[in-house]
Amino acid sequence: MNEVIKLIQERKSVRLFEDKLISEDIKSEIINAAFEAPTAGNMMFYSIVDVTDFEIKEKLSILCDNQKFIAKAPLVLVFIADYQKWYDIYKYNGIDARNPQEGDLLLAIQDSVIAAQNTVLAAQSFGIGSCYIGDILENYEEVTKLLNLPPYTLPISMLIYGYPTKKQIDRKKPQRFEKEFMVFENRYYRLDKDKLMKMIQIRNEKENLSKDEIESIKELHKRKYDSDFAKEMNRSVKKYLENFRG
Amino acid sequence: MNEVIKLIQERKSVRLFEDKLISEDIKSEIINAAFEAPTAGNMMFYSIVDVTDFEIKEKLSILCDNQKFIAKAPLVLVFIADYQKWYDIYKYNGIDARNPQEGDLLLAIQDSVIAAQNTVLAAQSFGIGSCYIGDILENYEEVTKLLNLPPYTLPISMLIYGYPTKKQIDRKKPQRFEKEFMVFENRYYRLDKDKLMKMIQIRNEKENLSKDEIESIKELHKRKYDSDFAKEMNRSVKKYLENFRG
Repeated sequence: MNEVIKLIQERKSVRLFEDKLISEDIKSEIINAAFEAPTAGNMMFYSIVDVTDFEIKEKLSILCDNQKFIAKAPLVLVFIADYQKWYDIYKYNGIDARNPQEGDLLLAIQDSVIAAQNTVLAAQSFGIGSCYIGDILENYEEVTKLLNLPPYTLPISMLIYGYPTKKQIDRKKPQRFEKEFMVFENRYYRLDKDKLMKMIQIRNEKENLSKDEIESIKELHKRKYDSDFAKEMNRSVKKYLENFRG
Repeated sequence: MNEVIKLIQERKSVRLFEDKLISEDIKSEIINAAFEAPTAGNMMFYSIVDVTDFEIKEKLSILCDNQKFIAKAPLVLVFIADYQKWYDIYKYNGIDARNPQEGDLLLAIQDSVIAAQNTVLAAQSFGIGSCYIGDILENYEEVTKLLNLPPYTLPISMLIYGYPTKKQIDRKKPQRFEKEFMVFENRYYRLDKDKLMKMIQIRNEKENLSKDEIESIKELHKRKYDSDFAKEMNRSVKKYLENFRG
């Protein structure tokens, strides 16, 4: 197994960090890894907000479903899908450009997440853990105001980085679903009830979960899909998308 | 510089491949790298369609803005943002689950692209090049039919992989914009005309582009943003999004 595959396999999300700063050199290496990522037409449809101000970290931790550990992260980067720059460039040069639309946004989102994942692996190569905070999609009004986001942007990924605590290093990486349920040859294959339940059952067995599958699904539905934060995320994303109606 | 940073820096898009197959072992390593990626709540909101059938590759190459090189790629993976599985799981277990919405979709897209980028770097670690094909977002009707995609899915990323030709290995990696235009501290900073033009000018100088900036911007607008394929992509993405109105 080569070093890169090993790194990819070992990488797991880390939320709690040692009280140890990330040096400016290593921070630069992490951020530069974003720029090395592939980007549609070399247009770099994203921006990165590097949150260094503790008060802003704290506000973000509250706005992101009250997850206090966010405020304690030594490095917080928000990856912004950004069509504002290119739209402004066109307009400033007298081009009668159409307004950005949802498809343009998805390309920009793709650019942003590709760049974000490069930083995750770059960080890992320096022994620095990270965690995606999906909740940055919530609270449209407050987040756009706090981060000063113009209309043709959307904060798709927030990542926190730091040196993992001993406990986090020792934590087992969660088990994934088996390949047979994730990869289909030539065409998507819609799994029936038996296959879907088998998918979950095998994963839960690998995780040594004592709860039965149906109970764990009901709990998950309640805790995630039916949660207040999921509803809030969907409301906010609708708001962002309104700006991209063209 | 460590091996991972080196790999990230060296990686550039490769469209043309040697006539050499990717072994099943290496293909497995590439695909497994996807599963090692972080995923929201360990729910894996994606599926991968592994396109092995030459006829389907050829159809995709036509549907993706007629890019013939796609059909010749030894490995073609389509990353599908997938809320169908979890929606079906909830329904099969008698849960009165709401329909997936746009925010759910964005989370699934994030999962998919994170996984996709892991495969890019895994491939690179075996000397295998890759290229994202953004055009998979076009032609909603034909693509969903060809790949048998159910309503709560969206094919966000298509990647082609193969051993790069000598010419592709020797090709210079495109220059990126300078960090000062990409990273903002604490808050997004909307760049004015001078800064945006400087951003492009510096990049073009590094690329030794002889054309002046305004000409290159006008050309880019015509070739990309105002193109038929961009319009088609936006039309199609609107169609996909209609399924996620909740």
